[in-house]
Amino acid sequence: MRLADLRTPALVLDRAVLTANIAAMSARAKSFGIDLKPHMKTSKCAEIARLATDGHSGGLCVSTVEEVRYFAREGFRDITYAVGIAPGKLADLGPALDAGARVTLLLDDPATARAVAARAGALDLRFPVLIEIDSGMHRAGLPPESPEILEIGRVLADASHLTPAGVLTHGGQSYGARGPEDCRAAAEDERRAIVAAAETLVGAGIPCPRIAPGATPNAVHMASAEGLTEIRPGNYVFYDLHMVSIGACRPEQIAISVLATVIGHNRARNQMVIDAGALALSLDASAQHRLPEAGYGWLCDAASRGRLGDLRLGRLSQEHGVVTSDRPLPFDDLPIGARVRVLPSHSCMTAAAYPAYHLVEGGETVVDRWERTNGW
Amino acid sequence: MRLADLRTPALVLDRAVLTANIAAMSARAKSFGIDLKPHMKTSKCAEIARLATDGHSGGLCVSTVEEVRYFAREGFRDITYAVGIAPGKLADLGPALDAGARVTLLLDDPATARAVAARAGALDLRFPVLIEIDSGMHRAGLPPESPEILEIGRVLADASHLTPAGVLTHGGQSYGARGPEDCRAAAEDERRAIVAAAETLVGAGIPCPRIAPGATPNAVHMASAEGLTEIRPGNYVFYDLHMVSIGACRPEQIAISVLATVIGHNRARNQMVIDAGALALSLDASAQHRLPEAGYGWLCDAASRGRLGDLRLGRLSQEHGVVTSDRPLPFDDLPIGARVRVLPSHSCMTAAAYPAYHLVEGGETVVDRWERTNGW
Repeated sequence: MRLADLRTPALVLDRAVLTANIAAMSARAKSFGIDLKPHMKTSKCAEIARLATDGHSGGLCVSTVEEVRYFAREGFRDITYAVGIAPGKLADLGPALDAGARVTLLLDDPATARAVAARAGALDLRFPVLIEIDSGMHRAGLPPESPEILEIGRVLADASHLTPAGVLTHGGQSYGARGPEDCRAAAEDERRAIVAAAETLVGAGIPCPRIAPGATPNAVHMASAEGLTEIRPGNYVFYDLHMVSIGACRPEQIAISVLATVIGHNRARNQMVIDAGALALSLDASAQHRLPEAGYGWLCDAASRGRLGDLRLGRLSQEHGVVTSDRPLPFDDLPIGARVRVLPSHSCMTAAAYPAYHLVEGGETVVDRWERTNGW
Repeated sequence: MRLADLRTPALVLDRAVLTANIAAMSARAKSFGIDLKPHMKTSKCAEIARLATDGHSGGLCVSTVEEVRYFAREGFRDITYAVGIAPGKLADLGPALDAGARVTLLLDDPATARAVAARAGALDLRFPVLIEIDSGMHRAGLPPESPEILEIGRVLADASHLTPAGVLTHGGQSYGARGPEDCRAAAEDERRAIVAAAETLVGAGIPCPRIAPGATPNAVHMASAEGLTEIRPGNYVFYDLHMVSIGACRPEQIAISVLATVIGHNRARNQMVIDAGALALSLDASAQHRLPEAGYGWLCDAASRGRLGDLRLGRLSQEHGVVTSDRPLPFDDLPIGARVRVLPSHSCMTAAAYPAYHLVEGGETVVDRWERTNGW
């Protein structure tokens, strides 16, 4: 099968780019002497998880109950559900434990810790539990100086079915970075916050085996891993224009793209339309904050994936992507029916619209198809 | 089954609201004496298509090849693929024709009309074809005064496997409306543009059986249907906060919501987190343009669906929705584990994240489950 045989829009994955991204992050974790437990929320794909965990402990992180169950079925034995837990979700994790996986939970609230302890006991399910620390993103987690960290630690240490697993943070403030220096600063925010929280726990005699920061830009640019046990980047397997915009990668490191067909020309308005719109790409505009010319994606040649001038998606509706340029568009080179590939603004969001990846190796031949798990 | 038994996030559909929305639009089309060919891009669901077409011709409109094939399998016999066609897509429509459906295409370019004519002949597949007119949205379509309308009409009339089906437009400029008057003006833009284009065709002896405007806000507020043969609203079956924001509906007419669980409290920042984030709701912020307090969705009681004060989603990340309010949040009423329902900003985008609707009838009992078709 070739790209020309795929119905558009379709999700394409360049295997050589993927494996280079994975190799670079793996080497980075090893250079710091720490574990890599990659966040699979981006790819949601067992084949990619096997590549990304190779040479490390085999642990990985996920963002939904469905991912926990999927990766357990796929044979992964150390799964961290890295989104705040609610007690009502524990029963649905049972099948993953039955499959032999250790499923580590995350929470940031003493009352929740007590409710999870009670529920785990009632279900007779055992979970290690991480405490979430806020290192500056202000989305979830406790500030590192919060007395509730110790309160939770004691609940976990005392609970029959829970064990303290350590501390976790996500320094996502780097998503607004102005470049590598800001990413490095966010990584240092993460490190200081969780190392401080870990010291509080250990000082009180509560075990803290994992000290786990997150976020791809931080992992790419961190200067020190002192006190950390692991990293948890996710986006790095694919990267995207948002990561380009904040200095976390180069455009040629973007591994996924959306294959699309030109379906409209308007020479008078210097505008084209492709069949990849808001559902095919997502409305994530995060790349535009630091890189306005990112639009909703960059147009590339369907075969070589070389960028087509400054062609970009200026606006999206459900199934229409409107192509713009500061120069006259190449209407003759891209007739209606021509195919292009679009580098996405935010790969985690774009990939979620598709059931599978079509793999290529630099050319137009589709060499494999890897399925994803979507939904909850 | 009850709402409490569903894993969150989950998509909930209030059947009584849906049927009232459908009845009102059906009555509106009948009051104008024209057909209703509803756009199924919003619901992508055969059960809803059967309700929405009841009492009319049975025709409907769709936005993807996958929808064409799905609705043909489900027994629909008059399907308009209301997004610009590319010749390479015709072969994939063959199974819908084999199933007995008439599939009407859309295009706005003479070269494409010739290429589609050639390809349809080569495949021995027959299609009626609509000409797309730009009535002010400037996304796709020819201006009503364009000489290319007649050029396309002649290509269609002369082609062995194509027939002229009329003219279609989408006056989506109403999506930025400041209220009903602007919606009414967009409807009049649509009407004048396609009636003028139709007169050009008919004046040249080319049949123009369909004169088809689109867009829910326009259908809701149109003052005149003179010269029109049908309407093509889609969003009206569900509505959403975007439609509220432009005066196209009231909040109580919103038929879908996302069931979510509270997974985080931060009293110091007056912030909660729910497990419905950017994937569960989409990052569509269209409602915020005219209604900044829409956020990414309004929080409602899980059972009654009554609005919870001014609680709204202020920001989203992949699996986190951050709840904000101008007043102190009701932490005690919404402990971690509590469930809420979220009215979406843009229902077409939100629903696309789910494989199915869970139906309720005003209470917490799930009375049915209807599947959607997603993807391309």
